[in-house]
Amino acid sequence: MRPRCRIALLGFGHVGFAVAYRLATPDAVPGLELTHIFDRRATLKRHAHGELRVTWTHSIEEVLRADIDIVVEVLGGMEPATQWIEAALAAGKSVVTANKQVIAREGLRLQRLAARQGRQLRFEAAVGGAMPIVRAIVDGLAGDRITAIAAILNGTTNAVLSRIETSGCTLEQALDEARSSGYAEADPSADLDGDDARAKLAILCGLAFGVAVDPEHIEGRSCASITSADFERAREQGGTIRQIARASYEHRSRVLTASVTPAVVSSSTIFARASGPANAAIITGEHSGDTGMFGAGAGGDATAVAIVSDLVAIARDRAAVVPAPQLTSDFTLHTSDFVPRTSNFDFVEAV
Amino acid sequence: MRPRCRIALLGFGHVGFAVAYRLATPDAVPGLELTHIFDRRATLKRHAHGELRVTWTHSIEEVLRADIDIVVEVLGGMEPATQWIEAALAAGKSVVTANKQVIAREGLRLQRLAARQGRQLRFEAAVGGAMPIVRAIVDGLAGDRITAIAAILNGTTNAVLSRIETSGCTLEQALDEARSSGYAEADPSADLDGDDARAKLAILCGLAFGVAVDPEHIEGRSCASITSADFERAREQGGTIRQIARASYEHRSRVLTASVTPAVVSSSTIFARASGPANAAIITGEHSGDTGMFGAGAGGDATAVAIVSDLVAIARDRAAVVPAPQLTSDFTLHTSDFVPRTSNFDFVEAV
Repeated sequence: MRPRCRIALLGFGHVGFAVAYRLATPDAVPGLELTHIFDRRATLKRHAHGELRVTWTHSIEEVLRADIDIVVEVLGGMEPATQWIEAALAAGKSVVTANKQVIAREGLRLQRLAARQGRQLRFEAAVGGAMPIVRAIVDGLAGDRITAIAAILNGTTNAVLSRIETSGCTLEQALDEARSSGYAEADPSADLDGDDARAKLAILCGLAFGVAVDPEHIEGRSCASITSADFERAREQGGTIRQIARASYEHRSRVLTASVTPAVVSSSTIFARASGPANAAIITGEHSGDTGMFGAGAGGDATAVAIVSDLVAIARDRAAVVPAPQLTSDFTLHTSDFVPRTSNFDFVEAV
Repeated sequence: MRPRCRIALLGFGHVGFAVAYRLATPDAVPGLELTHIFDRRATLKRHAHGELRVTWTHSIEEVLRADIDIVVEVLGGMEPATQWIEAALAAGKSVVTANKQVIAREGLRLQRLAARQGRQLRFEAAVGGAMPIVRAIVDGLAGDRITAIAAILNGTTNAVLSRIETSGCTLEQALDEARSSGYAEADPSADLDGDDARAKLAILCGLAFGVAVDPEHIEGRSCASITSADFERAREQGGTIRQIARASYEHRSRVLTASVTPAVVSSSTIFARASGPANAAIITGEHSGDTGMFGAGAGGDATAVAIVSDLVAIARDRAAVVPAPQLTSDFTLHTSDFVPRTSNFDFVEAV
């Protein structure tokens, strides 16, 4: 019997809660043992969740000193998450994170640190929720050369847009519903404006094309002013509106074209069919053509599936080699010719 | 610089040809080197493909004795493929195979041998063509408990059925077209009758549910007698006809329900939208709900992508732990209540 992987959880919000209860249930995942939960309000939460047999702490130093194999980071935001992931890797722990902002901006540096340490940094949960798009690109389609990605990467915005589509309500009403379903933050601007999707798209550009692109350099247009009248016009064109993250890469000339915008998508696409907090993606390869995927893109349970999958991978092979990607900054970023200026929305071809 | 993985290819048919040229092109895959090709007609093929700088041989012993890291088996059929995969593993080589019949029937034994040898047996190409469904189940959704799978797993049959749907032609005419496009064998019965899809479904049942099911025990009904009149009736029901492989598993009572049959699928499903040699799948998990995928399901190029992806994985981490699954034979196989006897076809709900 191999010893179980001892796990510390940093953060006990929506996702942390789901991960903790997945690991603590009677038919919990074999090989995994949750031993520590860090939370700023550890004392309060310990009382509310007495059934979780773990050490609660509000000291990150206690976690870093503890006999822990894997640190799960679900704090969100750049700091202190980046610093603590770095400290965990430096302390010889593997790290699983759902943090797209950290991976988009500091992922390469942290992956190199993990590789030097002989540890693993995994982040399936950072993009696509339960839809395993990171593995699809890094492993499943590793044998192809990927040339384009089109995707719905923000579950909150998709829940809002698909709600306006079916009910004709206002964006504000749709947001209220998404908030009460637990899919939207009090301040939804990072979702609607595309900051969240741009960070995720930047991660995918690194994985698929080997380019290091700053999320803020990716063209973005907000979905915040979409109204039911826009949906009416889209319907007349045979489609509907979704927030679409797109990138294509011309390997020879090293030209990256990338954007996150509201787009009119044909009713026959998987994008139009993605409703509620779903995510969807089409990955185009030189040899395989289009490979598509869709799945639950938001919510604690879906994100927890991706995190637990990463934990299972580490428990299965603690010495697995997860090489840091070789990313180039020597490329040109295009946006303008990709998004036609003549129309407010873009038409994504049927798949 | 790590030394390149030396690769021997067993079989130089459709898929072997595609793999060989992927590995031999000027921008070939870094880290991989094709050194040997075994083919019964090696002498003939050496002349026709002089540009491939490899050792051609019709002696399997020569391959097994050679300084090779990975053997790629694309011979098809049970024997000698099974015996040679076993010999390659015994000789300390890792193996990548596209052989669904061998994996469905002897996979567990061969995976155990690979694990004992500290080598890898990978078979992404055995199911789903370029659609990375093996990795989605084994890695991406490892953090969930999968309860059901519904899928199109035979590209040939899908090409034939979708051709009848769009053209109103006979099955024989559609088959002729599929043959001339390289998607159908001279004898298509293994495809149309579902033997191919049942082997693939048996593999997925092992990966997803941990059950060892004999493909021949899976209920099958042939697509060989489908006519355009059947499509007419399906259209009246709001759908079309596809060959659907389905399995669900009741983990508590250990009841497996599995079948491969022609089915009426609603027009709104990804199954109805899969045309030509496409594959598609919906994997249902307790925590993630439905995760879907689709992609190129047949053809040398698509299969080669899956094979090269497996080669890249081995080259990246030659010591990777790929544990043999723990499969149980202690389950009940149901078929009858799953396929309603009252109708000739079954309706798959919209996704």
